[in-house]
Amino acid sequence: MGQESTARESGRRSRRDRRAERQSGRAQAAAPAFVTRKIPYFAFLEEEGLQRLEDQADWLIQEVGLEFRDDPAALEVWKRAGADVDETRVRLPAGMARELCKTAPTEFVQQARNPARSVTIGGKHSVFAPVYGPPFVRCLKEGRRYGSIADLEKLVKLTYLLPSLHHSGLVTCEPCDLPVNKRHLDMLYAHMRWSDKPFLGAITEKSRAEDSLAMAQLLFGEEVVAENCVIMGNVNTNSPLLVDKVVTEAIQVYCGAGQGIVVVPFILSGAMGPVTTAASIAQALAEAMMCCAFSQLVRPGAPFILGNFLSSMSLKSGAPTFGMPEPVMSNYVIGQLARRLGLPLRCGGALTASKLPDAQAAYESADSMHSTVLGGANFVLHSAGWLEGGLVTSFEKLVLDADRLGAYQVLLSGMALDDNALARDAYGEVEPAGHFLGCGHTMANYETAFYEAPLSDSESFEQWRERGSRDAMTRAYERWTAMLDSYEAPPIDEGKDEALKDFVDRRKAEMGDAWY
Amino acid sequence: MGQESTARESGRRSRRDRRAERQSGRAQAAAPAFVTRKIPYFAFLEEEGLQRLEDQADWLIQEVGLEFRDDPAALEVWKRAGADVDETRVRLPAGMARELCKTAPTEFVQQARNPARSVTIGGKHSVFAPVYGPPFVRCLKEGRRYGSIADLEKLVKLTYLLPSLHHSGLVTCEPCDLPVNKRHLDMLYAHMRWSDKPFLGAITEKSRAEDSLAMAQLLFGEEVVAENCVIMGNVNTNSPLLVDKVVTEAIQVYCGAGQGIVVVPFILSGAMGPVTTAASIAQALAEAMMCCAFSQLVRPGAPFILGNFLSSMSLKSGAPTFGMPEPVMSNYVIGQLARRLGLPLRCGGALTASKLPDAQAAYESADSMHSTVLGGANFVLHSAGWLEGGLVTSFEKLVLDADRLGAYQVLLSGMALDDNALARDAYGEVEPAGHFLGCGHTMANYETAFYEAPLSDSESFEQWRERGSRDAMTRAYERWTAMLDSYEAPPIDEGKDEALKDFVDRRKAEMGDAWY
Repeated sequence: MGQESTARESGRRSRRDRRAERQSGRAQAAAPAFVTRKIPYFAFLEEEGLQRLEDQADWLIQEVGLEFRDDPAALEVWKRAGADVDETRVRLPAGMARELCKTAPTEFVQQARNPARSVTIGGKHSVFAPVYGPPFVRCLKEGRRYGSIADLEKLVKLTYLLPSLHHSGLVTCEPCDLPVNKRHLDMLYAHMRWSDKPFLGAITEKSRAEDSLAMAQLLFGEEVVAENCVIMGNVNTNSPLLVDKVVTEAIQVYCGAGQGIVVVPFILSGAMGPVTTAASIAQALAEAMMCCAFSQLVRPGAPFILGNFLSSMSLKSGAPTFGMPEPVMSNYVIGQLARRLGLPLRCGGALTASKLPDAQAAYESADSMHSTVLGGANFVLHSAGWLEGGLVTSFEKLVLDADRLGAYQVLLSGMALDDNALARDAYGEVEPAGHFLGCGHTMANYETAFYEAPLSDSESFEQWRERGSRDAMTRAYERWTAMLDSYEAPPIDEGKDEALKDFVDRRKAEMGDAWY
Repeated sequence: MGQESTARESGRRSRRDRRAERQSGRAQAAAPAFVTRKIPYFAFLEEEGLQRLEDQADWLIQEVGLEFRDDPAALEVWKRAGADVDETRVRLPAGMARELCKTAPTEFVQQARNPARSVTIGGKHSVFAPVYGPPFVRCLKEGRRYGSIADLEKLVKLTYLLPSLHHSGLVTCEPCDLPVNKRHLDMLYAHMRWSDKPFLGAITEKSRAEDSLAMAQLLFGEEVVAENCVIMGNVNTNSPLLVDKVVTEAIQVYCGAGQGIVVVPFILSGAMGPVTTAASIAQALAEAMMCCAFSQLVRPGAPFILGNFLSSMSLKSGAPTFGMPEPVMSNYVIGQLARRLGLPLRCGGALTASKLPDAQAAYESADSMHSTVLGGANFVLHSAGWLEGGLVTSFEKLVLDADRLGAYQVLLSGMALDDNALARDAYGEVEPAGHFLGCGHTMANYETAFYEAPLSDSESFEQWRERGSRDAMTRAYERWTAMLDSYEAPPIDEGKDEALKDFVDRRKAEMGDAWY
């Protein structure tokens, strides 16, 4: 719906207007709220291989089982459902996990407060969100430092302004200057107030998840929240095969209220899973399937996103590596497995171990994202801004990655093959050995023919030198600072804004500061 | 054959030996001579779309025709074959081009002087070669400057040392300090003497192609050359739809002697082809098919590589752009079309418009190469070192790109799915909530579990800072300079070396210097 109304609007604008808008950086106003894929998926494994991985996941669920710890309520849910519960170990009989997963929707809408920015997650759709979780930030001028709430607000505003980011995420950096037990309130307020894109809620403690839900109810209205998905939590299992109460409580709070949950086994192969990629993928599948089954026991039909985060490691140091061929393969394979389950998928991102937004960062991020996109990920957290294995949010990389997301968006839209695309008329106008530069077909098509990445410099060496020989990092710094200068907050209902501020103030007053 | 003997050798070496070898940078000794794909191709277009592109190519060949200029001998070849020749315009009746292409081999071996480095081109095999053609070079210390024969020799040596580069190419940079009419002799000598990998021959003039062939005969022996492909030329058509005598003469020299030819339509969409990607691909297919047909008329069975080089352009300046989604799509699609024709494919590369080996360069190169690799390119020129739209060879980017080629090589080798890969035993040893770090399965597999890119820094921020906070470009500079320090020339038969030197001296003495 958001897409349609945007399309109607842009149809009314003249070509020159649209061009001016692009140039002024306000392209986000006309950008689609999410991407709908028109190209096939890359079928990396054949049926036999996929079956072997599924058999392995089923074996883990039936024979090895998963630990569900520190949450007796979760064990009760399993017992009532007929699971084999041995103290904290939960095993399911053959087929039960798959059967339970069936009530989870293949695709669903997460509403945004601006309806034009609501996203459809699952099926042929892809939604890009920025990095999540880094305690540090880095920018060209100030270097590497702890993130603050001021940094988070800037990152929320930039995410709002970047047309290829469809979702605001949540912890774009950790606001380390705020008490641990209160920062979720300020983070949520920032996403709700300074952006109108959809966002995630807190998960680190049950009460924080409940606060997130309460704030969503203030923003959207209780009736809307009762009937729609407006917020989601994103949680990691404790691989291998451990699901702690952070996960089960988040599922109970979010899914219990009909909201969405993303459950992500984070597996560094060789540490939290076997050192072989196939085994780690199967383990991740088992863990995510079990959490999906649990979510559907909590509330059948609750939106569930099957997550996957798989990394290889350095043989020298054991440190995680990113953008390497093993996790690249896993993006392709988990995409196949998620579609066979009929579940929306979160995987991949623009991942790197580099300390700077340099060539290493870009090579690793590009291979990681290319496979994320071709593999069919539906919700991509970390699609922009991730640096240093997720310890740092880079302001420059946020805008550099976002440029590339625009390119993937075009790739996903496929290749036109209609009569205009084949351009037979042009060969009437242009003889062999001629050129197509000014011909009618070129003039009619060139404005929309090619994606142009704003931060890619394609000018001549001489022009580039005249303009100061700036590398990509420097151009990115200039771009994001200029974007913030031009930022205008989206309008918000004053009453809702007051209600949100009151809630934040009241909750803060109810608690002392805690720094752990 | 090269692969087999290498595999036998490495089977005899102990694990520690292999590790030491990796660490000392001598991995190239054991590296496979080329890559054999074990993963599927990415089927970007469906049958209907492919058929539309083929119909368009056939229409161009039948109705519009191609110009063959400045080479009356080529027109005679066409006339004798029954083509419709109208002055210099050549049109073929329906089906004739496809029929003629059928005698070209689907795969063939290009011999190297070291038999272990001979490459199979076509089918499921991929061969990576460095950048070709830049007049400039760039390195961290000396900046951007005209290339020299000393630079070329360094680049040949580095290509020899890099295990993921299988082929030496030819004009890794232009030796601009040598006369234009003589530099091919020194370039060929450099490839023949300082490397033992396969290489290309000159094409800029008929006599230079003949010199290349003559030098190959001295190196390999006339009898070997008469029976085997030991050298290939790489030529561009003059798109749109013009084939000049550089192309037809190169085909006549190389294919006439049973050697290989790569013919590459270089199309900047909107200039040398229509502004739409589909039309440009179809035009490239038509041009390459006609050249293949011509090569098979010259000598049925001569090795022919169908080339494709398609670039989009900046809307602001008309400058070529690289790594953008339109050429990325074209890599996938031309791969499908080449396989339907049964011809080996050259396309893509690690392409970028960036002036530096920075983030822009890496993002663009990675998306370009990822699609090149998944699309099924068999011979990849420009797979390392390309910078600034092909005007500059970057020493740093040569080694950075080569690292990524190693990653693609692993990606192409697919995912192990055997019992060891599924690691069920490991779950007997490691309980849920435990870790796999020291378990038997990890110990047995970790040394070969993951690709490690030597230039990727995955260490902690603190370690990285202690070691000087070096970015990827700086590490790459240190690496290639150290590699050159450790370079040892491969052995060569002294008689052959003398013969080559004599030939070069004699040919130089026969000509005055020409600088155009």
